[in-house]
Amino acid sequence: MPETTPPRYDVIAIGNAVVDVIASCEEVLITELQLNRGGMTLIDEARADELYEAMPPAREVSGGSAANTLAGLATLGLQCAFIGQVADDQLGKVFRHDMRATGIDFDTPGRDGEPATGRVLIFVTPDGERTMNTFLGAGQFLPAAALDEDLIASGAILYLEGYLWDPEEPRRAMRRAIEVARDAGRKIAFTASESFVIDRHGDDFRAMIEDGVIDILFVNESELATLTGEDDFETGLAAVAGKVPVLVATRSEKGAVAIAHGERAEVAAVPVIKVVDTTGAGDQFAAGFLSGYAKGEPLTRCLKRGAICASEVISHYGPRPEADMLKLMEERL
Amino acid sequence: MPETTPPRYDVIAIGNAVVDVIASCEEVLITELQLNRGGMTLIDEARADELYEAMPPAREVSGGSAANTLAGLATLGLQCAFIGQVADDQLGKVFRHDMRATGIDFDTPGRDGEPATGRVLIFVTPDGERTMNTFLGAGQFLPAAALDEDLIASGAILYLEGYLWDPEEPRRAMRRAIEVARDAGRKIAFTASESFVIDRHGDDFRAMIEDGVIDILFVNESELATLTGEDDFETGLAAVAGKVPVLVATRSEKGAVAIAHGERAEVAAVPVIKVVDTTGAGDQFAAGFLSGYAKGEPLTRCLKRGAICASEVISHYGPRPEADMLKLMEERL
Repeated sequence: MPETTPPRYDVIAIGNAVVDVIASCEEVLITELQLNRGGMTLIDEARADELYEAMPPAREVSGGSAANTLAGLATLGLQCAFIGQVADDQLGKVFRHDMRATGIDFDTPGRDGEPATGRVLIFVTPDGERTMNTFLGAGQFLPAAALDEDLIASGAILYLEGYLWDPEEPRRAMRRAIEVARDAGRKIAFTASESFVIDRHGDDFRAMIEDGVIDILFVNESELATLTGEDDFETGLAAVAGKVPVLVATRSEKGAVAIAHGERAEVAAVPVIKVVDTTGAGDQFAAGFLSGYAKGEPLTRCLKRGAICASEVISHYGPRPEADMLKLMEERL
Repeated sequence: MPETTPPRYDVIAIGNAVVDVIASCEEVLITELQLNRGGMTLIDEARADELYEAMPPAREVSGGSAANTLAGLATLGLQCAFIGQVADDQLGKVFRHDMRATGIDFDTPGRDGEPATGRVLIFVTPDGERTMNTFLGAGQFLPAAALDEDLIASGAILYLEGYLWDPEEPRRAMRRAIEVARDAGRKIAFTASESFVIDRHGDDFRAMIEDGVIDILFVNESELATLTGEDDFETGLAAVAGKVPVLVATRSEKGAVAIAHGERAEVAAVPVIKVVDTTGAGDQFAAGFLSGYAKGEPLTRCLKRGAICASEVISHYGPRPEADMLKLMEERL
């Protein structure tokens, strides 16, 4: 496909296809269950059963980092498609429904048999912090063969989730997707997702950064430190900024910084009345930022969009927007 | 079992075992899909698929009228057990988890094969009104053989849900459960659930009332009218009040009335800042009322408890309490 073909989609994402199982809980349960407070831990099915057994009553909502970002983008009016692996089961149907009902094209066929559709057991403590325990399930078997390469070539931005770099098959699929997108002259956006992923695959990520494969990189403060080996935030920024055209670093309540083509911009966090559940904060920040970036808006405005989206999603349970986001943007931007 | 055996449980309920699928939607969708606004409609699987296809992104939470009431009671510290039929599938596991995690004993085995666990597609309009569409699924096959009769005899109150009177097998099971409970000297509480159920089974209900089988009857205004054929609320009350030891009639924002052994009490609705989702309002009113009744509290206080529980549940999505209800009672009672 020649570079000049206009893209049919604004953003195409490859990511985990999981259902979040969200319960609020007391602080003591985090200790009792020996959870990695505030982080994301990969668990097997036996541990998932054990944790679910100990979990308070929960609500189920579709999740997955990149899928959440797409949901945010679609809510803001962007054309999006998703690639990810569910099983052919009830939770897989729930995930697919929620994607499509948000206006996102999602046609990766469900996978027969075991394992089941992935799920993330999320314990939300009274401070709103989420502690995630992920059983990847069918998601870890997303094969390169499941990629619709014409689809990938038709999106202006290919958005990839670091979490999915961990299992082997999806990693191979994402490497192939990057080739396809680059051959079509598209941009590659990448979210580092979590420090433990960088611990395990940092060499891959650093090589992609050095090779100029990543056009837009999303990290948070601790991921930046893990990626660069620099504990100081500014030193970490400086170590990466020249190597990716657009670097976005989020810092929770301290706001966010972006450095693009030598220009630097910062934004404060948008205050919220009560932090209910931080699940999806980073995902929705990315959605807000990309929604502006896709339209060629100034860097500060892209960051502001990110901060607004993050503030909405931490005000309620669940990782996807519930407000009328276009209206919210009109009011707050 | 002799009447003098002290009960092991405060309340045992038989009801629908369903998962609620809740989406907020615009008013126009209710018209487009030809839904019965504000009501509950029984649907088959084909219609459930059709409505789900048209439904906005949703959240899944365990529901079922009597199950919701038990969840309220358990949250208020009462000992409860549930009898209901799920399938042996993912949604069935979700339902069972949420009951047990609320502290409710629930041991009815899951049913193999089709149909799946029941689900209720709930469309919530901007005014907070819920429109329910129920695919009963496995629930309609609860057999009398699944009843643990020792369990039923061990509960001070047997709570039955009118919705489940409609399918034949559960109706037969509930008739048997009533015999068992009465032989053990227990009380029978019954919620009429919905006018359409009374349209279809009003003769059964009126016969049970005449025969003195029902000790505590919960109705709302329109159910009372359908049950008695009296459009005037006071005339309707008068027609039933002498025939059941305790009659509780709820009137949404107009509060509620109870008449017990000739004594009459009333309560105003507890105001809420914003009605988010009325799902579960009646169920939680019943929970609040019964939590007081089980302790022998004065009638007005029982009603007040009901109003507090109803006000909590309509302030958020989902049919079960999310607040610390014991603390809320302390503050507001």
